[in-house]
Amino acid sequence: MAQTTSTADHLRNALDGRWRDIKNQTREKLHHEAFRPHYTPTTAIARAKVAEQMQIMATAGVSDEGFRKEHGGTGDVGAAITMIEMLAMSDLSLMVKAGVQWGLFGGAVENLGTERHADYVRKTITLELLGCFAMTETGHGSDVQALETTATYDPETEEFIIDSPTPTARKDYIGGAAETATIAAVFAQLITHEDGKPVNHGVHCVLVPIRDADGNDLPGVTTSDCHYKGGLPGVDNGRIIFDHVRVPRENLLNKFGEVAPDGKYSSPIDNPNRRFFTMIGTLIRGRVTVGGSAGAAARVALDIATRYALQRKQFSGPDGEEVVIMDYLVHQRRLLPLIARSYALQFAQNELVSKTHDLQTSDVVDSEEQRELEARAAGLKAANTWHASRAIQEAREACGGAGYMAENRLIALRADTDVFTTFEGDNHVLTQLVAKELLTAYADDIKSMSPVEWVRFAANTVSDRVMKRTAAEAIMQRIVDARQDSEEEGSLFNRGTQVNMFEEREEYLVSSVARRLQAKSKELSAFDAFNAVQDHVLHAAQAHIDRVVLEAFVAGIESCEDPEARELLDLVCDLYALSVIEEDKAWYIEHTYLSTERAKAVTRGINDRCRRLRPHAQTLVDGFGIPEPLRYAEMLHPENLPD
Amino acid sequence: MAQTTSTADHLRNALDGRWRDIKNQTREKLHHEAFRPHYTPTTAIARAKVAEQMQIMATAGVSDEGFRKEHGGTGDVGAAITMIEMLAMSDLSLMVKAGVQWGLFGGAVENLGTERHADYVRKTITLELLGCFAMTETGHGSDVQALETTATYDPETEEFIIDSPTPTARKDYIGGAAETATIAAVFAQLITHEDGKPVNHGVHCVLVPIRDADGNDLPGVTTSDCHYKGGLPGVDNGRIIFDHVRVPRENLLNKFGEVAPDGKYSSPIDNPNRRFFTMIGTLIRGRVTVGGSAGAAARVALDIATRYALQRKQFSGPDGEEVVIMDYLVHQRRLLPLIARSYALQFAQNELVSKTHDLQTSDVVDSEEQRELEARAAGLKAANTWHASRAIQEAREACGGAGYMAENRLIALRADTDVFTTFEGDNHVLTQLVAKELLTAYADDIKSMSPVEWVRFAANTVSDRVMKRTAAEAIMQRIVDARQDSEEEGSLFNRGTQVNMFEEREEYLVSSVARRLQAKSKELSAFDAFNAVQDHVLHAAQAHIDRVVLEAFVAGIESCEDPEARELLDLVCDLYALSVIEEDKAWYIEHTYLSTERAKAVTRGINDRCRRLRPHAQTLVDGFGIPEPLRYAEMLHPENLPD
Repeated sequence: MAQTTSTADHLRNALDGRWRDIKNQTREKLHHEAFRPHYTPTTAIARAKVAEQMQIMATAGVSDEGFRKEHGGTGDVGAAITMIEMLAMSDLSLMVKAGVQWGLFGGAVENLGTERHADYVRKTITLELLGCFAMTETGHGSDVQALETTATYDPETEEFIIDSPTPTARKDYIGGAAETATIAAVFAQLITHEDGKPVNHGVHCVLVPIRDADGNDLPGVTTSDCHYKGGLPGVDNGRIIFDHVRVPRENLLNKFGEVAPDGKYSSPIDNPNRRFFTMIGTLIRGRVTVGGSAGAAARVALDIATRYALQRKQFSGPDGEEVVIMDYLVHQRRLLPLIARSYALQFAQNELVSKTHDLQTSDVVDSEEQRELEARAAGLKAANTWHASRAIQEAREACGGAGYMAENRLIALRADTDVFTTFEGDNHVLTQLVAKELLTAYADDIKSMSPVEWVRFAANTVSDRVMKRTAAEAIMQRIVDARQDSEEEGSLFNRGTQVNMFEEREEYLVSSVARRLQAKSKELSAFDAFNAVQDHVLHAAQAHIDRVVLEAFVAGIESCEDPEARELLDLVCDLYALSVIEEDKAWYIEHTYLSTERAKAVTRGINDRCRRLRPHAQTLVDGFGIPEPLRYAEMLHPENLPD
Repeated sequence: MAQTTSTADHLRNALDGRWRDIKNQTREKLHHEAFRPHYTPTTAIARAKVAEQMQIMATAGVSDEGFRKEHGGTGDVGAAITMIEMLAMSDLSLMVKAGVQWGLFGGAVENLGTERHADYVRKTITLELLGCFAMTETGHGSDVQALETTATYDPETEEFIIDSPTPTARKDYIGGAAETATIAAVFAQLITHEDGKPVNHGVHCVLVPIRDADGNDLPGVTTSDCHYKGGLPGVDNGRIIFDHVRVPRENLLNKFGEVAPDGKYSSPIDNPNRRFFTMIGTLIRGRVTVGGSAGAAARVALDIATRYALQRKQFSGPDGEEVVIMDYLVHQRRLLPLIARSYALQFAQNELVSKTHDLQTSDVVDSEEQRELEARAAGLKAANTWHASRAIQEAREACGGAGYMAENRLIALRADTDVFTTFEGDNHVLTQLVAKELLTAYADDIKSMSPVEWVRFAANTVSDRVMKRTAAEAIMQRIVDARQDSEEEGSLFNRGTQVNMFEEREEYLVSSVARRLQAKSKELSAFDAFNAVQDHVLHAAQAHIDRVVLEAFVAGIESCEDPEARELLDLVCDLYALSVIEEDKAWYIEHTYLSTERAKAVTRGINDRCRRLRPHAQTLVDGFGIPEPLRYAEMLHPENLPD
């Protein structure tokens, strides 16, 4: 019997992208009873549950994907990222624990280490070794180069001495450090002695055992538990203080920096800043995964809130019957633009994962491509996590009191993802990083610059930049060529017009911020010049991210072959594009890209798209492809109410 | 020795308003160890702690304030509201429990009941009787008139039979219903029989005992526990199902509706809609208290985040030293406008409390004033609670990973207040209620109308409305007369110009929505006409609320006699006014109230005010007057870090 493919299936296939097979396989796995979401704030219960889930995954061989073949993996980077993202639909604590163990810790050992660390990798895959990623310190979050922990080499014993010299050097919020991890990948200033004098080679990563098999801290190590947090009860975040802890020389992850037995330092990269950012760059997967997971959590929340809005009735309607709340314009405006943004971001995320995979599995290093990847990962991490906070919050409020009950899932999704906007890089700092890339693309060392240094640099080197499309260049050009710059309201629904509006805003903002930066740095100190334009800088970066996302959406529509699904995606893309324009409408009018009349038409256009998408609301969330057990909420099952 | 009064003290005095003595006394009480915030998600612990705090308060006589003298109270309504708001700084679970016991349950018995219920009131004050407020049902939140629970009178036994006829009639989310309450104020359709036929007199309130002294459900009553929620672990929210539970006739709270022993219904208010809304109107204190408490929680969060921003350093600055993060423009823009809005809303809240007090302690009923009060309470509840969600969230993110740790308070404030936007009236529904009052002020029955009915009505009756200033009319007029309508950038700092911009926006929006409503209802069905303008309706209401808040701010500045404090308040008021204008900047340009050049100057003006207020950041949060133990956060005490 032939099974017809529904419009929702076509949407799901388009949205799943290149790793759709992996996604479908993972959907099957997530039907296992162990992955059914069950809320508890009790850390002991939540931690035990995650440990059980991790074992199931390791046993099923799920953890192999991300690691290279020589370590027993399959080397499918995209599949590894995809699978961790999928876990986010079940439990974000699980996603974070899996991300720490296999992504951050395993990734650090595999990518910063060498052959001598192969056994660590193998044991990390199988969970024989539980690791944690000890980067952040109490006094140092976003500014990783300023970390205080030291790894001082002692040639007498051929050991490194790991030390937390000050209270603010304490490693903080480290997932796994409170309870489970027996070893830490510790980021520390690497110090050797030359002619009797200490020389700091910058931040490197060293493997440091922290507790014995019985869970006791090893000598010189003091761990503690961060206890309750805003969410993520299954993650045992903790703190670590090192008091002159000695580890063998071989524990240095030495791919980018090595200390010989006699204490001589060497590195394939001479420039310390470039070395540091090369190391950090190999760890990009964490950031990609966090953005993707936030997106997945947002989709679960929107799915739940949409289904609720399709069955919940309040106040009498035209026929005296109560009205389904999804029929109210304001409710449509609350949920549908967020659904549209979820589609947009997911298409962009797919391209990011794809690019990450291609670069990380390639033997050739293209530093320009790598830089662009890093900026895009930073920008999409910020966009996805902010979207998640906003979308899940709106979903919660759209379900009223029911939305506040743990049994309806939304509050855990909200609480768990909340930290995503500030971890793996604070979103404001990441957005600034995007701007740095936009403004001074060809300078290798800018990433290490403080705001002040960067302004001094940028004031002299900002140059005309050529905007580069990130997806489907030929399609984009065709679309832009077909744009309609008329004052007619309908032209706002023309994709070329929309793309053009996104591109022109970005170009204007980037070039004007460059000019202002140069002008201000003539009048003001470098810090004041930076501060005078900081809001403008972030605005430019935001415009860039918006454009990248729209391009990905256009390419995503192009990849969908079903005419009905394409038609829906076109409407959804309109809603996304017009919503972005509406949010920045004042800017568009101020800079004469929109007449005041046409500006009013933007809002009408959004209302129109909401009305036209209303009948397809369920199809749109079905397209998210969330396994039934993972979107279960009591309020969606009134048949369970006691009589 | 003479003690000089600091600028912060002057700010605090201005912000404290009419009940400043009560606030200062309560500050002293809140230094008691029992009120020190201590995070736990464990409901058993949190509930026990709140019970202990409630006893301390009752013993201290705190609960007397809100009740009339004949019931053993002092009749100071403003003081009662003020004190419950102050508890929000300590623990929002406590605030909600106190609000349910003394505000909602006690308030219902005192205001809807008569002399025969006096003993209930006395025992409620002393906690001999623990009550709950059983209004919301699983199927019915915002539309209270559609409740399904029935109270059917049986003249044979002179009893009411309380029943939940359907699963959706279950009382839901009721604070106290899970564990502690022994009696419920149950809102139900009151049914008597006339000539053998049932007659529904609409929603009334009946006292129904629900559990015995041992905590067991009484016969016919089934309670259950809502268990985990997004926050408020100390509140035992629960559900109640009634299966033909009989209570004596005297349990009807009979001030606005009475059933004689023979079953004859009588009421001092003939019109059932007017009767219903009169009853509901007496319960306004709950809504006032929720808004005020949300505001208090927001101030605690902003205080903590500001202090953190004044000590946290990241990235090197001009001299190579790390920069205090409050020195970054973007950080100032994240926190200072929210602080400004907190000031603005608190001044507005003070006037609301004052008006509530005056109307509720007056013997004369002025129905126009009462209606205005209800609309203002609705609008400020929405404004305060949305502000709290946004401000606490921004405060959390501004503190990075530290902000996510329970030991730093912010996540509990966020989680606990989250439900405030949807309980005691969903904010969107409340905003619509404000619009109804604005558009059809003189119709008594509009509140009961469904959207459809309301459109039919409004299309015919919308009339020219005279905008009425809500505070300091003479001052406002003087200020508006002194406005500067020049294109100069500085004129944006002119208070008269700002007030004028707020007033003109409101007038335009209200009159244009009225015109559109009338036009649309000629072309479309009533429901479609309503839906076509629903976003416009909410926008008009928002503009009204913004204007009321600005007026209160102006009056608040006027009440401050210290020149330095006044100067600061003037800058803060600028920041508030310009932030509101910036948020709606596109509208101002589209409607030619702002030229595009002047629109850009709005943003520059905000940046300017942020820079000028930066040196006073600590003074501004000191002005909130939060007792030291209630703003304690570990991250603010690096001296406690282990060496």
